[in-house]
Amino acid sequence: MANTIRASIIGASGYTGGELLRLLLMHPQVQVKSVSSEKNKGMRVTSVHPNLRAITELEFVEAAKIDSNVDVLFLCTPHGASVKLVEQYLQSGVKIIDLSADFRLHNAADYPVWYGHEHPHPELLKKFVYGMPELHREEIRKAHYVASPGCLATSAILALAPVVAAGLVDTGHLVVDAKIGSSAGGARADASTHHPERAGTVRAYKPTGHRHTGEIEQELSALIHGKKVNVSLSPHAIELVRGIFSTAHCFLVKQGLKDVDLWKTYRSFYKESPFIRLVKEKEGIHRYPEPKLVMGTNFCDIGFELDWHAPRLVVMSAIDNLVKGSGGQAIQSMNLMCGLDEKTGLWIPGMHPV
Amino acid sequence: MANTIRASIIGASGYTGGELLRLLLMHPQVQVKSVSSEKNKGMRVTSVHPNLRAITELEFVEAAKIDSNVDVLFLCTPHGASVKLVEQYLQSGVKIIDLSADFRLHNAADYPVWYGHEHPHPELLKKFVYGMPELHREEIRKAHYVASPGCLATSAILALAPVVAAGLVDTGHLVVDAKIGSSAGGARADASTHHPERAGTVRAYKPTGHRHTGEIEQELSALIHGKKVNVSLSPHAIELVRGIFSTAHCFLVKQGLKDVDLWKTYRSFYKESPFIRLVKEKEGIHRYPEPKLVMGTNFCDIGFELDWHAPRLVVMSAIDNLVKGSGGQAIQSMNLMCGLDEKTGLWIPGMHPV
Amino acid sequence: MANTIRASIIGASGYTGGELLRLLLMHPQVQVKSVSSEKNKGMRVTSVHPNLRAITELEFVEAAKIDSNVDVLFLCTPHGASVKLVEQYLQSGVKIIDLSADFRLHNAADYPVWYGHEHPHPELLKKFVYGMPELHREEIRKAHYVASPGCLATSAILALAPVVAAGLVDTGHLVVDAKIGSSAGGARADASTHHPERAGTVRAYKPTGHRHTGEIEQELSALIHGKKVNVSLSPHAIELVRGIFSTAHCFLVKQGLKDVDLWKTYRSFYKESPFIRLVKEKEGIHRYPEPKLVMGTNFCDIGFELDWHAPRLVVMSAIDNLVKGSGGQAIQSMNLMCGLDEKTGLWIPGMHPV
Amino acid sequence: MANTIRASIIGASGYTGGELLRLLLMHPQVQVKSVSSEKNKGMRVTSVHPNLRAITELEFVEAAKIDSNVDVLFLCTPHGASVKLVEQYLQSGVKIIDLSADFRLHNAADYPVWYGHEHPHPELLKKFVYGMPELHREEIRKAHYVASPGCLATSAILALAPVVAAGLVDTGHLVVDAKIGSSAGGARADASTHHPERAGTVRAYKPTGHRHTGEIEQELSALIHGKKVNVSLSPHAIELVRGIFSTAHCFLVKQGLKDVDLWKTYRSFYKESPFIRLVKEKEGIHRYPEPKLVMGTNFCDIGFELDWHAPRLVVMSAIDNLVKGSGGQAIQSMNLMCGLDEKTGLWIPGMHPV
Repeated sequence: MANTIRASIIGASGYTGGELLRLLLMHPQVQVKSVSSEKNKGMRVTSVHPNLRAITELEFVEAAKIDSNVDVLFLCTPHGASVKLVEQYLQSGVKIIDLSADFRLHNAADYPVWYGHEHPHPELLKKFVYGMPELHREEIRKAHYVASPGCLATSAILALAPVVAAGLVDTGHLVVDAKIGSSAGGARADASTHHPERAGTVRAYKPTGHRHTGEIEQELSALIHGKKVNVSLSPHAIELVRGIFSTAHCFLVKQGLKDVDLWKTYRSFYKESPFIRLVKEKEGIHRYPEPKLVMGTNFCDIGFELDWHAPRLVVMSAIDNLVKGSGGQAIQSMNLMCGLDEKTGLWIPGMHPV
Repeated sequence: MANTIRASIIGASGYTGGELLRLLLMHPQVQVKSVSSEKNKGMRVTSVHPNLRAITELEFVEAAKIDSNVDVLFLCTPHGASVKLVEQYLQSGVKIIDLSADFRLHNAADYPVWYGHEHPHPELLKKFVYGMPELHREEIRKAHYVASPGCLATSAILALAPVVAAGLVDTGHLVVDAKIGSSAGGARADASTHHPERAGTVRAYKPTGHRHTGEIEQELSALIHGKKVNVSLSPHAIELVRGIFSTAHCFLVKQGLKDVDLWKTYRSFYKESPFIRLVKEKEGIHRYPEPKLVMGTNFCDIGFELDWHAPRLVVMSAIDNLVKGSGGQAIQSMNLMCGLDEKTGLWIPGMHPV
Repeated sequence: MANTIRASIIGASGYTGGELLRLLLMHPQVQVKSVSSEKNKGMRVTSVHPNLRAITELEFVEAAKIDSNVDVLFLCTPHGASVKLVEQYLQSGVKIIDLSADFRLHNAADYPVWYGHEHPHPELLKKFVYGMPELHREEIRKAHYVASPGCLATSAILALAPVVAAGLVDTGHLVVDAKIGSSAGGARADASTHHPERAGTVRAYKPTGHRHTGEIEQELSALIHGKKVNVSLSPHAIELVRGIFSTAHCFLVKQGLKDVDLWKTYRSFYKESPFIRLVKEKEGIHRYPEPKLVMGTNFCDIGFELDWHAPRLVVMSAIDNLVKGSGGQAIQSMNLMCGLDEKTGLWIPGMHPV
Repeated sequence: MANTIRASIIGASGYTGGELLRLLLMHPQVQVKSVSSEKNKGMRVTSVHPNLRAITELEFVEAAKIDSNVDVLFLCTPHGASVKLVEQYLQSGVKIIDLSADFRLHNAADYPVWYGHEHPHPELLKKFVYGMPELHREEIRKAHYVASPGCLATSAILALAPVVAAGLVDTGHLVVDAKIGSSAGGARADASTHHPERAGTVRAYKPTGHRHTGEIEQELSALIHGKKVNVSLSPHAIELVRGIFSTAHCFLVKQGLKDVDLWKTYRSFYKESPFIRLVKEKEGIHRYPEPKLVMGTNFCDIGFELDWHAPRLVVMSAIDNLVKGSGGQAIQSMNLMCGLDEKTGLWIPGMHPV
């Protein structure tokens, strides 16, 4: 492979890192050089990610021994840890894709609001591009540092961006009601994820003030010249392991909007975005997006419906939180940063039924 | 039993009728006289409701042979069928509790809007009380005819009534995002309920314009002297058999509302309503309502959270769609109509874990 | 209540104790005096068992402060802890029902085999009756101390006892393949119960050598005058919170056995056992037992099928592991010990659908 | 692509055909020429298989218009229909892989036993190779006609073949207790697959006499020179869409067998079989096979455990019923028939968590 991209992952024992690793191992132009985990150093990655048995012989190293002589270094470290690693690798010239929240917000003043602390290196924030190709494709192509978006943020922004950009909806009263699977909470067990408590529930674990609200408002606001946008994000843990379904309830700013207008708005906005599929069928059982249908894939399915009895629009989006909402989107950025077609290694259909 | 209430059920082979039957069989002051099913006439009820094995020896009769010489006649017939039955039994003097939608809307003009057809007997509409004891307790006590509410309507109205009545929220922009189990769709199998298609999904089967919107707007509007209320109801089929979780997203009409104000509003509104439990804990994993915790019960758990970053209130409610959302609420009305404590036969805790 | 039974529970914060408490609170002739939990002392029981909100105001006390001036003391303590408590309360005259394994095996030599340690008080073992009313009804009536059976043991023994007692099956080659819900593992979270890992799985966590094998072999052997019985028990964790389904694969010792013979064998064996329901329908979808249909109930549903192509019999049983497999069966014993009808407080139908 | 294999599928609207299509579309050396469905002719395949949106523009044709000028013709038709199609295409020279049961049994006399009717063309049976590469790799390489195995049969045979071939187990008393997902029942909805009835259940829908028993006994018997093998197969529908977990309970024919002997037996038997993974870990939560971990893949994971208290061996296997149990295994045969590495297009890892 002449154009092999060499990659390493710091923090590969969690669900995000594991899924990123799975996708990189399947990528035709990537060679994974090393993966780290402090807790599991010296162990085979398959002891933590049993799905990769027979697929890889890799073993975890400690982060200090990661092979950073690579083309791309992925950080799947907890929020707060990435910023320290970035400092360390800044001089090395390696491209960095950070999957934590440490560099997603451009305005340092937003960190205390959403994360409860001052950003330790506000001067680094401007070096990072927000890694959502559908909104920042050209910037990502040129980027050296990418902050890969949050999973809830991805599903909300992709649902709303076209209608916000087109000025169709009241940006002061946007409601995003999300339904989310348990894998989004990470690999650490606690009382709330104990199967008898978590199975079959609907749990509003953070009805208001979820951290991803900051990213969403930042990105939507940027589409309308920085005008303030107010998003009310309420995620609900439901019986699901993988997947996010976001229902965006929008109030229309003018009368008379028709389906055809919305089709045009969405098609135009996403005309260069292969992973966006508009799903709005007249009949059948799969008329709108469903997270099942994008499981394991990098697709974001989007549908919409106008309310005939009130000036309201409902937009729905479905993603796999660990793929388009995490590892897959990071690879999509990597492809762009390395001059590849953004679909490379990611053009994978979902399963049916599943 | 001196005060035994004799009851019959027309249409007892569906999920609504079956659950009503289960609860009536457990009720200490009810004797079930007969139950009908056209399709299953002559068969034991346990052939359709296997949970009742060893509990009852009842057999289905055809509707024409129902024992209507009872105190209360329950109609668990499809929408459109109840109206014909009511006509038939109107002269008999029997108390009727109809679980269909045929008499829920007071204004005949609302039927074409929400049900797509003119009401065949608009003159009967005013005879019926909307059977939600939390809003119409005294009327129900005196009622001869009760229209028992829809399940989604129950969860939405109970969540919103106190804050609408108190004038705290913008009634022009109410959003109710509901998550609902498969039993609400009834006992008839079709392609959309086929397990491989329905399991593990999130499906927005009716993002706008759901029929229950009519009831919800009617009842909330009545709390504010008929002022127009606009509710945007979007139900989502999720992986769940029993249960509804409704998330009501409200915009506040004034600044400065505090938790304590909402506690007062809800406690005061529901001070005589034993089945309403306010659930809002400071810690633990069960801080808000969850449908699992009310499964098999007549409780409606309600919680709320104010958004610190925007003038928004999120109210959450959880019910069992087949109990408080259907058969249980009908019995609650029966208790009131027959002079019993409304809790009789319904004071059943849920299970944990489940 | 003239005949009120006063009861206390030591160890009421786990799933077993919580379910026992739920059932005791619903029991018409029981008054719960106190419940203990070391970890949660001073807290309302509803902080741990949110299903009991509005049902009880009880608070946990520490075990040392339990009200033992009661008629029946239930021990829902971990294996190894009960034996110490029994010693302590032995002189008090209180009836004790122990839900742990500490007194289930009559032969002290079996403890090292199945529990890996010598029994600390082998002289106490003979004081306890194995609390399975279907096998030991008369002994339980006279018992002062009852060791309530394990959940897997309950499902296996009830399935097999009639055919073992009747000498129909090869007792050297009994296979019990069980499918079990996550609640059977208790309330403590760990990596294996973390929802993303546990949901939707089939996991043979103990393919051979499960502890309950000892109880099963003891009870089945006792039915045939102590002749050795060999049971191969393999439980599988499946996607389920509550419930056990056991499939007993038996080889027949003689040819020509017919359905009618088995009907007679089972009906005769269980003719005084109200909680055993024989389920074997010729048509419909619920032809055999299903754990869903007994959820929340004390029923054990049993079905069977003869293999036409080989001398084999399959017996199937379904229970709720927390009711018939634990708290419910303990109350069934309590009823007998206190002179009540064994159904008292337990004659509860399951739900459908659920 | 010089070596492109042209393929068509007759019967591509069901779950088997749909999954085969998904895998063929991802296969680097296959071109799908046409796919048929009588019911959906003229419709896009994505109307039935929404997972393939953006992946393919194919439309269904009627079977009569299938492009049979291909290298391989796949039949995903119902049992009984394939035999008619095979007759029709026999002269054309096209390689045929039949996924129905019509040609799996070599002995025509077995059809009345397991399928209830005489085979209409017994003379064709000998033309077909049983398409399980792990047992018949060389025959498949040379085959023109392949009968692809049943899903339950695949999981049972692969678990048992090594120990049966090695003469380690009592072949007169083999028990296979299988747990299976709803997709194995096909795409047609009926009362038993209605979500409220099917969700969360454990249902022994065919405790004895399952059709796949015939294939299993045939293949195992062939390993020991035709000596009679008796398999007791009991499948259980559990809460799962995709996947089969088979627990094979075996009685050992001699004492003293050790883990190391079994490791050798399995490793040796499957040394050329890349899709067999032996899973038996000393620690961790994924010590044995789990269907979740092979979902979407062609792997068959196999583990085992010896019983220390009795001469018993438990062998466990996990497959995806629609991949290794159906479409994937058919492609594995196709690869061999067409001279490709059998892994081509199938070397796909599973997901974790899922």
